[in-house]
Amino acid sequence: VAGGDTASALAAGNPVVVKAHPAHPGASDIAARAVRQAVSACGLPRGTFGLLHGASAEVSLALVVHPMIRAVGFTGSLAAGRALFDAAAARPEPIPVYAEMGSVNPVLVLPEALRERGAAIAAGLLQSATLGVGQFCTNPGVVLGLHDDALMAFVAEAGRLASAMPAGVMLQPRLADRFRAGRDAFRGTAGVEVAGEGAPGSGASSVAPIVFFVSGAAFLRDSSLREELFGPSTLVVACADRKQLGDAVRSLPGQLTASVHATEGDLRQYQPLIDALAERVGRVVFGGFPTGVEVAPAMHHGGPYPATTDVRSTSVGTASIQRFARPVCYQSAPASLLPPELQDANPRGLWRLVDGELSRAGW
Amino acid sequence: VAGGDTASALAAGNPVVVKAHPAHPGASDIAARAVRQAVSACGLPRGTFGLLHGASAEVSLALVVHPMIRAVGFTGSLAAGRALFDAAAARPEPIPVYAEMGSVNPVLVLPEALRERGAAIAAGLLQSATLGVGQFCTNPGVVLGLHDDALMAFVAEAGRLASAMPAGVMLQPRLADRFRAGRDAFRGTAGVEVAGEGAPGSGASSVAPIVFFVSGAAFLRDSSLREELFGPSTLVVACADRKQLGDAVRSLPGQLTASVHATEGDLRQYQPLIDALAERVGRVVFGGFPTGVEVAPAMHHGGPYPATTDVRSTSVGTASIQRFARPVCYQSAPASLLPPELQDANPRGLWRLVDGELSRAGW
Repeated sequence: VAGGDTASALAAGNPVVVKAHPAHPGASDIAARAVRQAVSACGLPRGTFGLLHGASAEVSLALVVHPMIRAVGFTGSLAAGRALFDAAAARPEPIPVYAEMGSVNPVLVLPEALRERGAAIAAGLLQSATLGVGQFCTNPGVVLGLHDDALMAFVAEAGRLASAMPAGVMLQPRLADRFRAGRDAFRGTAGVEVAGEGAPGSGASSVAPIVFFVSGAAFLRDSSLREELFGPSTLVVACADRKQLGDAVRSLPGQLTASVHATEGDLRQYQPLIDALAERVGRVVFGGFPTGVEVAPAMHHGGPYPATTDVRSTSVGTASIQRFARPVCYQSAPASLLPPELQDANPRGLWRLVDGELSRAGW
Repeated sequence: VAGGDTASALAAGNPVVVKAHPAHPGASDIAARAVRQAVSACGLPRGTFGLLHGASAEVSLALVVHPMIRAVGFTGSLAAGRALFDAAAARPEPIPVYAEMGSVNPVLVLPEALRERGAAIAAGLLQSATLGVGQFCTNPGVVLGLHDDALMAFVAEAGRLASAMPAGVMLQPRLADRFRAGRDAFRGTAGVEVAGEGAPGSGASSVAPIVFFVSGAAFLRDSSLREELFGPSTLVVACADRKQLGDAVRSLPGQLTASVHATEGDLRQYQPLIDALAERVGRVVFGGFPTGVEVAPAMHHGGPYPATTDVRSTSVGTASIQRFARPVCYQSAPASLLPPELQDANPRGLWRLVDGELSRAGW
């Protein structure tokens, strides 16, 4: 309701209509009230911000095809995001849809790094995979490595850490139900083993962290293992050789992030693999985990389809304003008609490109 | 073949496949040969540039849905551009389509400006409307003003200039046929008068410049008058009053450009009208005409649908590289993996935002 897309759209000068998630109408109302109070306190026009409720897809679709709606931001499932994208593309005047639709955020663990610091990587992985009970879009859901002793020790350590962790409470019982169903589907998939699982908690929304383990061959065989399991889990894939590891990387659809744990020696040997990963993602993290998404100019939070519907766009960071802005060129315009940003005197002291030179000067 | 989209895509590091227009396969081949020679001379990979021929829509559609094609640039008709856009949006992984599909590039002539320099504006209009025998995407096809003596004198002068101009030769007989058919349709539309027309030339591709005149009421009644007539023609619309002039502006679909001829006094009086125009276009030209499209960083050549399928994007100017690029964030990456643009030493001396400060320094 008061998230990044709302902030970006308002910053770009647009009014915003939010469709609240039916799982938390009350929390949405509280946030919307705060935004509306701010709108009023800032003297912005009434109607700058609106909130709609609705549990059916019709409300969202009606918004997306309304002629006065000019762009759409969305986070949720692939099916829902694609339905909104398709509706927007079929409008008489198509509009952009910025849908974020899930990601397994692959983590590449390379042999030397695992030998040097496998236990530390396992600890970082579990912390990241269980952060917010695994309910982050950047949750590291798939870990890719080469089957050797260091990887097996890493799997054992990750499993041990998971089994020692307490159960967590997801945002809604429905999410927990879905996680349990997905977890059981993973468990029932040929070749998938459980490396470790925490003790179950009580309550409808309570789920235990879990670490799965599978061979590269089984991972390549079953595309369902490459789909997001939303919750505190991760799947370690042990590839038989370098070729299979490459195949596993290339089997991945578009992702928000990839993470790489590698020594300098690993990097020299596996450069093409890292390039292949970078082609599939919006952000590559070295020596870390993807769950922290800093709100900063250098952040790019987006990625190739199906991670998002618009690979050019970020939902986090200063560039996110471009989702809801469009360029207009003013040629030979009198100063009185120009916005302050474009006036010769540069009253806001902005950096501007003037006759090929960047400058903050005015004249 | 060797146009702006090809240059932008190559500059962004992509290989390019061009589908040649069936009207000039030989010229396309000559241009493609020059590009392929440059590819070879620069030591770029074979296959960096390809040219396909085909007179049917199937070739284009097959290219647009090919999994290895990641973005599409197009200039042509609304029907063809929309078909490519729809095909791209329906792909399993949708891709951007930058289609430019026609524009009438409205020119607003305001009362004081017409009284002060109506004859000069008429001369500029005719020059712009007949440049390249009217075959520019930025051709000024509709002129909007208030019905008064100054406008009628302006119409008479524009008509006089058109009738004194020689016929021109369009690029192909088919374009000339279409122009003649469209011209005759305009002529047959209720309320449309011919203010002046040049003498017809000889030859299948020869067409004469023509200036039409219509009341604001008739213009608002018939949406076909708001569609592009590709060739050396323009339509002057005389609105009965300020409200009708506003209605005429707001009746226009998305455009590449708008031009405004106004004195300081006009600007003070008609600001909301100019704002309404700016909402419909990618570039607003003051005191000039839109046919000149300078290749410069400040240029924006694009506009709201149906002028283009992507209002955020320009086909001309340095920002056009963004059509064929996508952001990737490298977090904590070792210098050895970073492209030169991102290395701490800044070997290319680029302007970069570092910790919130723009700088060309390296360290």
